[in-house]
Amino acid sequence: MLTRPQSIRHAADHRPELATRAAALREQICSNRDLSFLMEAHDGLSSAVAERAGFKGLWASGLSIACSLGYRDASEASWTQLIDVVERMVDSTDLPVLVDGDSGFGNFNNARILAHKLRQRGAAGVALEDKQFPKMNSFVGDRHPLADANEFSGRLRAVKDAVGDELVLVARIEALIAGHGLDEALHRAHAYADAGADAILIHSRKSTADEIFAFTNGWQNRLPVVIVPTKYYRTPASAFRAAGISTVIWANHSMRAATSAMRNVCERIITEQGIAGIEAEVATLEDVFSLFHYDELALAEARYLPANAAPGQAE
Amino acid sequence: MLTRPQSIRHAADHRPELATRAAALREQICSNRDLSFLMEAHDGLSSAVAERAGFKGLWASGLSIACSLGYRDASEASWTQLIDVVERMVDSTDLPVLVDGDSGFGNFNNARILAHKLRQRGAAGVALEDKQFPKMNSFVGDRHPLADANEFSGRLRAVKDAVGDELVLVARIEALIAGHGLDEALHRAHAYADAGADAILIHSRKSTADEIFAFTNGWQNRLPVVIVPTKYYRTPASAFRAAGISTVIWANHSMRAATSAMRNVCERIITEQGIAGIEAEVATLEDVFSLFHYDELALAEARYLPANAAPGQAE
Amino acid sequence: MLTRPQSIRHAADHRPELATRAAALREQICSNRDLSFLMEAHDGLSSAVAERAGFKGLWASGLSIACSLGYRDASEASWTQLIDVVERMVDSTDLPVLVDGDSGFGNFNNARILAHKLRQRGAAGVALEDKQFPKMNSFVGDRHPLADANEFSGRLRAVKDAVGDELVLVARIEALIAGHGLDEALHRAHAYADAGADAILIHSRKSTADEIFAFTNGWQNRLPVVIVPTKYYRTPASAFRAAGISTVIWANHSMRAATSAMRNVCERIITEQGIAGIEAEVATLEDVFSLFHYDELALAEARYLPANAAPGQAE
Amino acid sequence: MLTRPQSIRHAADHRPELATRAAALREQICSNRDLSFLMEAHDGLSSAVAERAGFKGLWASGLSIACSLGYRDASEASWTQLIDVVERMVDSTDLPVLVDGDSGFGNFNNARILAHKLRQRGAAGVALEDKQFPKMNSFVGDRHPLADANEFSGRLRAVKDAVGDELVLVARIEALIAGHGLDEALHRAHAYADAGADAILIHSRKSTADEIFAFTNGWQNRLPVVIVPTKYYRTPASAFRAAGISTVIWANHSMRAATSAMRNVCERIITEQGIAGIEAEVATLEDVFSLFHYDELALAEARYLPANAAPGQAE
Repeated sequence: MLTRPQSIRHAADHRPELATRAAALREQICSNRDLSFLMEAHDGLSSAVAERAGFKGLWASGLSIACSLGYRDASEASWTQLIDVVERMVDSTDLPVLVDGDSGFGNFNNARILAHKLRQRGAAGVALEDKQFPKMNSFVGDRHPLADANEFSGRLRAVKDAVGDELVLVARIEALIAGHGLDEALHRAHAYADAGADAILIHSRKSTADEIFAFTNGWQNRLPVVIVPTKYYRTPASAFRAAGISTVIWANHSMRAATSAMRNVCERIITEQGIAGIEAEVATLEDVFSLFHYDELALAEARYLPANAAPGQAE
Repeated sequence: MLTRPQSIRHAADHRPELATRAAALREQICSNRDLSFLMEAHDGLSSAVAERAGFKGLWASGLSIACSLGYRDASEASWTQLIDVVERMVDSTDLPVLVDGDSGFGNFNNARILAHKLRQRGAAGVALEDKQFPKMNSFVGDRHPLADANEFSGRLRAVKDAVGDELVLVARIEALIAGHGLDEALHRAHAYADAGADAILIHSRKSTADEIFAFTNGWQNRLPVVIVPTKYYRTPASAFRAAGISTVIWANHSMRAATSAMRNVCERIITEQGIAGIEAEVATLEDVFSLFHYDELALAEARYLPANAAPGQAE
Repeated sequence: MLTRPQSIRHAADHRPELATRAAALREQICSNRDLSFLMEAHDGLSSAVAERAGFKGLWASGLSIACSLGYRDASEASWTQLIDVVERMVDSTDLPVLVDGDSGFGNFNNARILAHKLRQRGAAGVALEDKQFPKMNSFVGDRHPLADANEFSGRLRAVKDAVGDELVLVARIEALIAGHGLDEALHRAHAYADAGADAILIHSRKSTADEIFAFTNGWQNRLPVVIVPTKYYRTPASAFRAAGISTVIWANHSMRAATSAMRNVCERIITEQGIAGIEAEVATLEDVFSLFHYDELALAEARYLPANAAPGQAE
Repeated sequence: MLTRPQSIRHAADHRPELATRAAALREQICSNRDLSFLMEAHDGLSSAVAERAGFKGLWASGLSIACSLGYRDASEASWTQLIDVVERMVDSTDLPVLVDGDSGFGNFNNARILAHKLRQRGAAGVALEDKQFPKMNSFVGDRHPLADANEFSGRLRAVKDAVGDELVLVARIEALIAGHGLDEALHRAHAYADAGADAILIHSRKSTADEIFAFTNGWQNRLPVVIVPTKYYRTPASAFRAAGISTVIWANHSMRAATSAMRNVCERIITEQGIAGIEAEVATLEDVFSLFHYDELALAEARYLPANAAPGQAE
């Protein structure tokens, strides 16, 4: 929290605040109030932008973080590289962050170490999917073997025993994407609920939400349902509300917006051999300084640096 | 280079390729051919986008990397966090990367360790500025004390002795920004040339390039001149060519483009409670997969994984 | 805490436990009970060994950690490399860890970021010394300039404002080593007490404790006094008790013991061209497995892995 | 290499030197000269000690590094944590380092990324074992499933294609330890040779070397053989020579020596409430400073710092 004035002031409240973040995410996902939305972010900048725009929670997307690191979304980044990114995201906002933990980076032991460390770095929740390590992105290729439901339940129980309620534990079901049908998806959902999951993320790569709604119909909200409508993006929020869904994750749209904008700016600068044309279209430096509270640093210099000392120096 | 097919194929040539990157940057900055351009990048994604758009070299901006990490550009990120980012940038493209090394993160010893590690991670060059540690961004505040020219020359000599010609060493002069005038800037430029710098980066925060041209007029290209026209963005490239400038750095425009695009997308998703409206405006997932050569991974699975093994698994 | 059975079991109590560590260190340093001792450690192994031997608190020595990393104790390691080591130390024991934070790695802003992160990684306290960045080891060379007392007080205030009572803040005075005499040392001690320090570490490189006792005599325990008798090692603990000293740090002796033992074993293996001769003199693998609770992992496999799954596999 | 005077002086030769390290390891393992020995190390300190004692190559032991980090040898440390440790080891000596790469941290893709990065950080070779991820230590428990030989061969081919001859690739066979017998071990050895391995590490947990010699007898040195006589430590080197073995790894003895020495010193300090008794038994600070070439730093200060500047300061 060191980057924001109020946080510096109340820095002694930092640890409780972390508990508050998990509680905030739990409230968003697990209460019966209105549909919640989590916005993808992948670094400090995208996190700060999403918070400033008004989002109340973040999704630390595995795909987007892989892209940001220049890796492929195939378990190429190490789990410690992931927690380092999450730490920067957490430190850049006051928002709760739900982390895409892939399949947990190994077996139950790797999963619980990951969860333990995510909690330490200030994450509010973790989503684990019932696949194996290493993984492939759900939208790439077809032959993604699922984890054995019993073994994956052990991963969930191990995580729950390790972090208790201090992280919201979301169990992500890949059965529909792997072509196993509704019954298998429901069977797994019940097993994961029994294992201690706080919510179920049911994933689909169809262009409509039909199989999602079939699932919610059969599931009857035994636990809250989280969805990722990247492929069925035309379905309106009203339909999700009607189906009793708890939370919608906009899973990769800041990364994709950044990609197209940077591509456009790069191409224009090359063509125009200059930046005069794009100056008005990009954020100002003042915008950026505001996002990261440079004003707090100026105030702190006035408070902590002797008048005769240079601002950027120990003496 | 593991992410691109051709590089996997010729992976045994990797180390020479790194030398080739430094040579490519030296050619761009130090030869007498046409004006060169370096595009800012701050992570793997922005690097891959800039390469795909056609840029021939990258600027690892301290400001942009700080933003990406959620830090302020005031020596908040550690030097090892910087080299970790640079490594991801290098591994995401074939382009030479000139790294913004701030003031070297301490004294001559810190500077040479930094340079040694940047070379190891595959950077092609490093720019060091004649300020002290910790630093403030050149566009924030006014009271930035300069380093003693003699002491800073020692930093340059130590770096040159440590990495030789394997990194292009750019000495960045902050004298104009600090209000010390042309004579001081020229005096420092000569001192840094004597100390072994390969090029001089003369920085200005004026809205015109007048003091830049006064410098180039007095300097007479004893060493190549690099500029950063963030503030005098209206000056056309033709004027830089006429002044005999070697290289222009577009210093933070991908970061600023990403910021405004992510802000816009976040605001629209909140307003529209959905992503249908922005789907056509953001890069597709296929675009992203192409940037990071997911096709190479599919080919590699066919080559290295037995037919009966799952694609995403050790067995 | 994931490595120990009891901690896995009570993992939900982890965060409170961190607060407990700071409280435990505060009790050891700041209460009026008997003399306390902190044992140097520099990685997970040395920490676990010190805990098993019976020590109640650890000193994360800058010198020893530098050696372990293969750096010199001259601000060569980055501050993030330091916190990564501290995290491994904390996770390897239940003991409170007082961290040697050198001079804070820059100005007040760097110092408070460091403290914020040390707290997050589970440290119980931090010692900051009134020198500048980069630093040299106190026992190497002579010309170590001190920080301005007023500026250093600003560093202390900034840290205190950032972390409150969640870290024990120890102000380390280098005035005696720098040859400034008792008056300067006392003057600084009072200034640092005013700035919010919880304890004073008075350092000396003399072979007797005379100047330490002169200090304690003049200081009259306004705040608890911590000492590092590396050079005046012949002084008995009874003399420290008589002087009202709070805490003694054995500052580098595990590292030095490891160095001599590894040197001896290496030389013997080379001479004897074998390990039969030294087998009885080194710890057994069972000793090592016991230190890191391999038995907990076996129990956890029985609890979380299905009977038909291989122990080391996700499925 | 920055820590040693000669290396600073010839720093421009650094990259070639890395190639030299791989060549040196290849000479030690793959030539037909006398038996070679690699000494375990796990951090910068143990590496520097082993070099000073006279060893010509190092073994970056997975078990010892896990202990140093406070992890268990069960794939708890991430692969990036491993390469960070290897980097510190490489930078602390001039010796070639053969790295224990476990099973490659996943499938062929993870293995080749690991190898690529180990080469970048300066390692001279990597040993991969035919097990799965996550792994258990070979001496703990019994039910360690082997990797499919065909799939593991794909991992080896992928690594070979990625790094060519710039890393010595050692294939480690766990068949004997897993109870599969000599025929399976030989079958796998031939498969791994076909896949491009440079040497075979045949592992055994028997207290005599009988099954090792049965293997070497059947193998007839198609590729050089590397052994790890931790359990059959009584077998003399002459027997290994007679069997035509190439290289012996003393796999964990510096770590175990450090463990027992630190334990002893901790216990004595607690009992004696002081360090006077152990002072003569531990390495001196001067010994430690010598290992890390503090004298080079003093010389460099004289060369690069202006006379009027403080030694530890930028200005």
